[in-house]
Amino acid sequence: MIKTRLTEKLAITHPIISAPMAFAATGQLASAVTEAGGLGMIGGGYGDPQWISEQFAQTGNRRIGCGLITWRADLNPEVLDSTLALKPAALFLSFGNPKPHAKKIKDQGIPLICQVQTLKDAQNALDCGADIIVAQGSEAGGHGEKRATLTLVPEVADLIAKQYPDALLCAAGGIADGRGLAAALMLGADGVLMGSRLWASREANVSQSMHQAALNATGDETLRTQVMDVVRHLPWPERYTARVLKNDFTNRWHHDLDGLRNASATEAPQWEQAWAAGDAEKSNTFVGEASGLISAIESVDTIIDRTVSQAKSLLNRQW
Amino acid sequence: MIKTRLTEKLAITHPIISAPMAFAATGQLASAVTEAGGLGMIGGGYGDPQWISEQFAQTGNRRIGCGLITWRADLNPEVLDSTLALKPAALFLSFGNPKPHAKKIKDQGIPLICQVQTLKDAQNALDCGADIIVAQGSEAGGHGEKRATLTLVPEVADLIAKQYPDALLCAAGGIADGRGLAAALMLGADGVLMGSRLWASREANVSQSMHQAALNATGDETLRTQVMDVVRHLPWPERYTARVLKNDFTNRWHHDLDGLRNASATEAPQWEQAWAAGDAEKSNTFVGEASGLISAIESVDTIIDRTVSQAKSLLNRQW
Repeated sequence: MIKTRLTEKLAITHPIISAPMAFAATGQLASAVTEAGGLGMIGGGYGDPQWISEQFAQTGNRRIGCGLITWRADLNPEVLDSTLALKPAALFLSFGNPKPHAKKIKDQGIPLICQVQTLKDAQNALDCGADIIVAQGSEAGGHGEKRATLTLVPEVADLIAKQYPDALLCAAGGIADGRGLAAALMLGADGVLMGSRLWASREANVSQSMHQAALNATGDETLRTQVMDVVRHLPWPERYTARVLKNDFTNRWHHDLDGLRNASATEAPQWEQAWAAGDAEKSNTFVGEASGLISAIESVDTIIDRTVSQAKSLLNRQW
Repeated sequence: MIKTRLTEKLAITHPIISAPMAFAATGQLASAVTEAGGLGMIGGGYGDPQWISEQFAQTGNRRIGCGLITWRADLNPEVLDSTLALKPAALFLSFGNPKPHAKKIKDQGIPLICQVQTLKDAQNALDCGADIIVAQGSEAGGHGEKRATLTLVPEVADLIAKQYPDALLCAAGGIADGRGLAAALMLGADGVLMGSRLWASREANVSQSMHQAALNATGDETLRTQVMDVVRHLPWPERYTARVLKNDFTNRWHHDLDGLRNASATEAPQWEQAWAAGDAEKSNTFVGEASGLISAIESVDTIIDRTVSQAKSLLNRQW
């Protein structure tokens, strides 16, 4: 147990929120995180209301939040309505401007968590009324941007202290053990978002092939790329790339996005088939630089217990 | 005063080494850092023996180290000899393979510090006998690579613990205050390298225009680019880029390196002239994402004292 403003605000035991990873963050994963003392999040991702509703149905009476991709919610606002109707413990928006959605969320008394990748976006999210800012560095798996967690977190902390002292701050990107949690608290965060490390759990919806690929990879063996969005024809804004493991597919296409677009008729169905099969070489494995800090696929409670006890031991050392 | 294995090994008061920044890290800056309780480093950079010797001449009897760009020392090995003859307190190599130089340095009993940007390079540097590994993240100013400090440091710490437990580890990239120092210690580092924050000191050889540009910039306003190496005709290995402030020059050329090469006859002399004049818009300002954490140009002792006392206060908080 580590008490912070975040554990107080969310009434949780440990200052850990699970990242709402599209596909991987199911009701099962979110439930396990909440059971372990954090706040579990369902990865609403691209916004399939039926899938989101099914995931919530698996979580019983547990307090569970949900994340949506902001630019996708812009295109399809009824997903936000149907998600709010499920009474999430928090609504998490990332990758876009929260402004069109913030009022609706806050009017229902649901905490608004905004993930940002730049100081400028942090300012905007705070101006929109975000209760919790998640400052996400480039080391994170999946979609993100260029800035690093180590500088973005204290810079946002200074902004919050100056302008919105009641807002809370979580660090995201590269935090996979107690060292990362303790470091984030030193940087001025009230807690952390854990993605890759919980993706590498038994409860996550991830194939054995992808889990094994991540176990085999050091942190050197990831990159930020757009190949998976080009092949899926997903209109991600250009500023966002996704961190995945380097593999056959990224070797072929990372430096030839136009070639990939031209080969779409054959590449798209092959990728989709490989993705459905959980193939780590012919589709993409969404994991961050923290892959180099992960040596086993474990249960969520084992991961969270060890993270917290390691952090406590580091934090309580005398200097 | 924060005691770590680094302060013991180097017989210094605070676990802080100044980055051997080319041009900026003069004898004056290095002296101020050593006087303030850290280990000051002269930025030997591209390897001008006369300049290096002049800088050492300014440092009196103080213990001062020196850094060299490894690939440049490969081309010009006598610079290493002349630098070692100055009896530096440590020899710091970065950006290349230390193997051709390591034995000569260690045979003289001079501590070998190797800065690395990947886990793979950390392994190589340790195998070469590095006494201290500096794990440098992408958030750093000046030359570097892609990985982030927050994941690279603990991953290298694990490698050291497993294979070379007597080797020491410093974190570099993004560390500009006591929060960064405390976070680095949590991540498993024995100390830190400070670059940008000491670049933004009165003792650094930096123009007023560049200092002011960094004060005006948030951490969002830097990028990694090759424009300054293309315009200077410096044959940097492709994997290394440099973090600088976004400005007129990067706006014009960052996405058009071939255009810059073609315009070299006019652009190169203009850039050189602007660089000599310290012009922050027409040449480049080498500073990291930590620019967003710097609000004043201060003396080195003020910066180091505050960093250490802030870190101590954070580290000694009870959780």
